[in-house]
Amino acid sequence: MTRVCWACGARTDDDSRVRCDCGEPLWLETDPDSVPDSWPTSVESMWDVLPLLGVPAPDVPAGLPTAAGGTPLLRTDSLDTEGVRVHVKPEGLNPTGSFKDRGTAFGVAAALERGEHRIGTVSHGNMAESVAAHAAAADMDCTVLVPADIADQRLAAIARYSPRLVRVDGDYGRLYYESLAVGQDAGVRFLNSDAPWRVAGQATTALEILTQFANRGGGSPDALVLPVSSGGHASGTWQAVRTLTEAGLLEAAPKLCFVQAAACAPIAAAFARGDDTVTAVEGGETIAYSIANADPPSGGRALAAARATGGAVVAVEDPAIERAGKRFAAAGLAVEPASATTLAAVERLREDGVLDDGDEVALVATGRGFGDAGAAVDADRVDLSALGSLFDAGASR
Amino acid sequence: MTRVCWACGARTDDDSRVRCDCGEPLWLETDPDSVPDSWPTSVESMWDVLPLLGVPAPDVPAGLPTAAGGTPLLRTDSLDTEGVRVHVKPEGLNPTGSFKDRGTAFGVAAALERGEHRIGTVSHGNMAESVAAHAAAADMDCTVLVPADIADQRLAAIARYSPRLVRVDGDYGRLYYESLAVGQDAGVRFLNSDAPWRVAGQATTALEILTQFANRGGGSPDALVLPVSSGGHASGTWQAVRTLTEAGLLEAAPKLCFVQAAACAPIAAAFARGDDTVTAVEGGETIAYSIANADPPSGGRALAAARATGGAVVAVEDPAIERAGKRFAAAGLAVEPASATTLAAVERLREDGVLDDGDEVALVATGRGFGDAGAAVDADRVDLSALGSLFDAGASR
Ligand SMILES: [Zn+2]
Ligand SMILES: [Zn+2]
Repeated sequence: MTRVCWACGARTDDDSRVRCDCGEPLWLETDPDSVPDSWPTSVESMWDVLPLLGVPAPDVPAGLPTAAGGTPLLRTDSLDTEGVRVHVKPEGLNPTGSFKDRGTAFGVAAALERGEHRIGTVSHGNMAESVAAHAAAADMDCTVLVPADIADQRLAAIARYSPRLVRVDGDYGRLYYESLAVGQDAGVRFLNSDAPWRVAGQATTALEILTQFANRGGGSPDALVLPVSSGGHASGTWQAVRTLTEAGLLEAAPKLCFVQAAACAPIAAAFARGDDTVTAVEGGETIAYSIANADPPSGGRALAAARATGGAVVAVEDPAIERAGKRFAAAGLAVEPASATTLAAVERLREDGVLDDGDEVALVATGRGFGDAGAAVDADRVDLSALGSLFDAGASR
Repeated sequence: MTRVCWACGARTDDDSRVRCDCGEPLWLETDPDSVPDSWPTSVESMWDVLPLLGVPAPDVPAGLPTAAGGTPLLRTDSLDTEGVRVHVKPEGLNPTGSFKDRGTAFGVAAALERGEHRIGTVSHGNMAESVAAHAAAADMDCTVLVPADIADQRLAAIARYSPRLVRVDGDYGRLYYESLAVGQDAGVRFLNSDAPWRVAGQATTALEILTQFANRGGGSPDALVLPVSSGGHASGTWQAVRTLTEAGLLEAAPKLCFVQAAACAPIAAAFARGDDTVTAVEGGETIAYSIANADPPSGGRALAAARATGGAVVAVEDPAIERAGKRFAAAGLAVEPASATTLAAVERLREDGVLDDGDEVALVATGRGFGDAGAAVDADRVDLSALGSLFDAGASR
């Protein structure tokens, strides 16, 4: 699979290259002519839509990797906001609970096809769980590099799959680059957040949304809204809509809108300033910690994706994220704060005029939420013998 | 939808009746003649396979209820056990993380179709989360009855969806029956574990497995293995295979095998004794707490299902459940202990001669697992500046 630089167009057939000499990330070369001329009729997994990306599909090993994607697209009118019609892609329904499984499944399949059996990743969250689970399923050797101060509970969630876990002291942002170099030397494939294989897998989120819209006779969405952290998922989404418009299956690209937590929003800041490149920031604390990337390796590509499609990159504050999380729960969807940012973003995008009244917008809820064990919960209390009093007039809410 | 007694055949058109005058549970009447004469070509959700059950399908409201089911069927050769070829149905990929969403989605759809807007359930686990989420999504009034001593963390998980939560003091087993009576008086639809609508929805687990087997050209499985608690899921599974064999779409019913935790195994005990009815037990503690039902309301029906199909009901001890859970994790699947029982059961069923060498068996992993926050986790530690030493000879596992 040839890799090409999104920025300068340089190409390479070296499967180990992740970044171009110009410094920007590579992605897989797509061939719009190889894209089928109609939408898949059903979406059971990501593999049903992958042909739409126009890249060679790897052989998929049995078991876990067959299960990635195929998440539903929900029309959730209770989440409609200021005239915008909201649809939700609940990526928490992936095998390990997040969108990361798509990129991992592609990466693991491609690695195995090349006879590689050692993989790794730099993550303390969803990606770590996803990579460790897929490595276990495929009987691959797996190294997960985590920050030295990782919370016990998150370490335990990753440890279930028995990867080699390594706490790393030092600048966690630099670790992204260092791991690629060390991995290349040691023959360990690091499936980091914007690795070309991962980006190809992540493209299937958008491919599924577009297929699901087409299959319900609804044309295509006006916009997609995704949280953005490293920029890998944003890149895959852009790759998907570029290829489909070039192939002619999609008349016009939906606006690609990305959202960050205000406490750590380098891409949104660059977008607001009109810059072409993203400058690292000193990130602060946010409840949406899983997207707090102060120095995003694919930031420039995400920026370009938003601009090229008439979208935007916005930042939302924690109180707005919290309110949005409650609205998701009231629609029956428990999502992590990083995912709740998308709904908070709709309000901002509407104010800014990026979204219009009547627009059909798909929010990508990237991961499932967990109960907040610390929260105090109100509950009535009754004795079984007095159960009948529960629904007496006045007793019911 | 006419309801019929599985035991004596009595019928009623009263939608509020859950049990027959003979004491046994009712289920929906099925019409094998209405079953399509071929398998659905794809399984995106439970609604794709529901027509195979031969019951009237309710209108499905938009949003969450459209998303239930459609879970993949994984061929997991690393879980093969003593010649038995293992497939896994990971029900944790349902919207709220368990198989319960199937029954809830059917129940909520059927209730709304009748203009009902008040629902409830008796549960402190998966079913409570499922019912509360679906009620929130459909803007229904929801009451969840939990034991007075429920753990804070589990209460918080249910509370996310803002149901009316009521702690009930007294015999939790009796609460099942009391809630039906109180609900009927108050006009609150209790979607308990073996309510006929719920059982119809739960039938789709088996309908999907059989469809997925057929579509991969593999004929049909030799056996299905499910955890059994109240007996509702077991009942739905039996209803599915009965209807499909009567309709002629399935040549022979797979053996239905059910498993309980040894500490609380009234149905397995009755099976072993050759009894026709299940006697309540004094249940003990088990890590598979979510299936520890000492007085299962559909126990007799589960027993009959196992006998009628040449299956069995077995009990497994906690250490075996724990080992099985580790084997699941090593296949990339984090499942709750209740689900891990299925793999532990394979060994027992093989010993007992219920399963044979070369059998194709589908295990229903009913719910997702959580990280054990209490477990100590081993991790290496390295400084970023020494990252290169990670993969030195000898340092790697
Ligand atoms: Zn370049
Ligand atoms: Zn009867």
